[in-house]
Amino acid sequence: MRSDLQFYEDIVVGVPERFGAYEVTREEVIDFASRYDPQDFHLDDEAAARGPFGTLAASGWNTAAISMRLLCDNLISRQTSLGGAGVQEIRWTRPVLPGDVLSLEVTVTEKRRSRSRPDVGLMKLFQRMFNQRGEEVMRLTSTGMIKVRHPEVP
Amino acid sequence: MRSDLQFYEDIVVGVPERFGAYEVTREEVIDFASRYDPQDFHLDDEAAARGPFGTLAASGWNTAAISMRLLCDNLISRQTSLGGAGVQEIRWTRPVLPGDVLSLEVTVTEKRRSRSRPDVGLMKLFQRMFNQRGEEVMRLTSTGMIKVRHPEVP
Repeated sequence: MRSDLQFYEDIVVGVPERFGAYEVTREEVIDFASRYDPQDFHLDDEAAARGPFGTLAASGWNTAAISMRLLCDNLISRQTSLGGAGVQEIRWTRPVLPGDVLSLEVTVTEKRRSRSRPDVGLMKLFQRMFNQRGEEVMRLTSTGMIKVRHPEVP
Repeated sequence: MRSDLQFYEDIVVGVPERFGAYEVTREEVIDFASRYDPQDFHLDDEAAARGPFGTLAASGWNTAAISMRLLCDNLISRQTSLGGAGVQEIRWTRPVLPGDVLSLEVTVTEKRRSRSRPDVGLMKLFQRMFNQRGEEVMRLTSTGMIKVRHPEVP
């Protein structure tokens, strides 16, 4: 284990960080939708033109998965992560289109120790995803688990 | 458009439906995680043995995406869907392991007309995903949009 990894005690609450420039290709939009969300407005230009967005748009689950990738590469990779505990909200506020370049703003809004497991800390993360025009495309609130460095300290 | 598609008016509240037998292969677990959630306990057996689940487990986002696929194939495919409006909760209650066979139980717990758009209906869906042993692995509450057949009727 890298010695510079962050533990629960190192997590700072209330400071937004912004990551990434993730380009959403047309190929990814169609690949993801073919596998997990085969609605025609995620797959086919002609059908999408008549659909709810008026143009081909990424599955919301694709956008959520991309936020996880940005979180992994930029935040979780420097933490003693124990995985996700759950999601409290996802809102897809604007369609994500092929060619969009996404960035993620993450704020730890709360942290606390687990009541049942002294070696586990919980962090609430407020995430906002933006496109290259600075428009918000998704907001997501989740809870992540992280190791406590000194479980013996209450 | 198929003439037998369900509109808002056809949606029945409070009746659970159960779908699917989706086999989660080891290949899918690793493919998905490589792309969207590259934490070592989703990718590598040895690291996973020391990780939070004690064994290789699927990304929670992979499980969520699979629930969308089961929803598309079995529910949305017979509806005039307008896409998802958001998610109110996801809880990953048990790890999903390679070889698991997942099924989805869906209940429309609430429906109402959109206040701003008379042609749009909103449905709240309570989803529970189970493995082949009948153990719950995820629960998810979401809101979907569907066309209103007679927008002129208040």
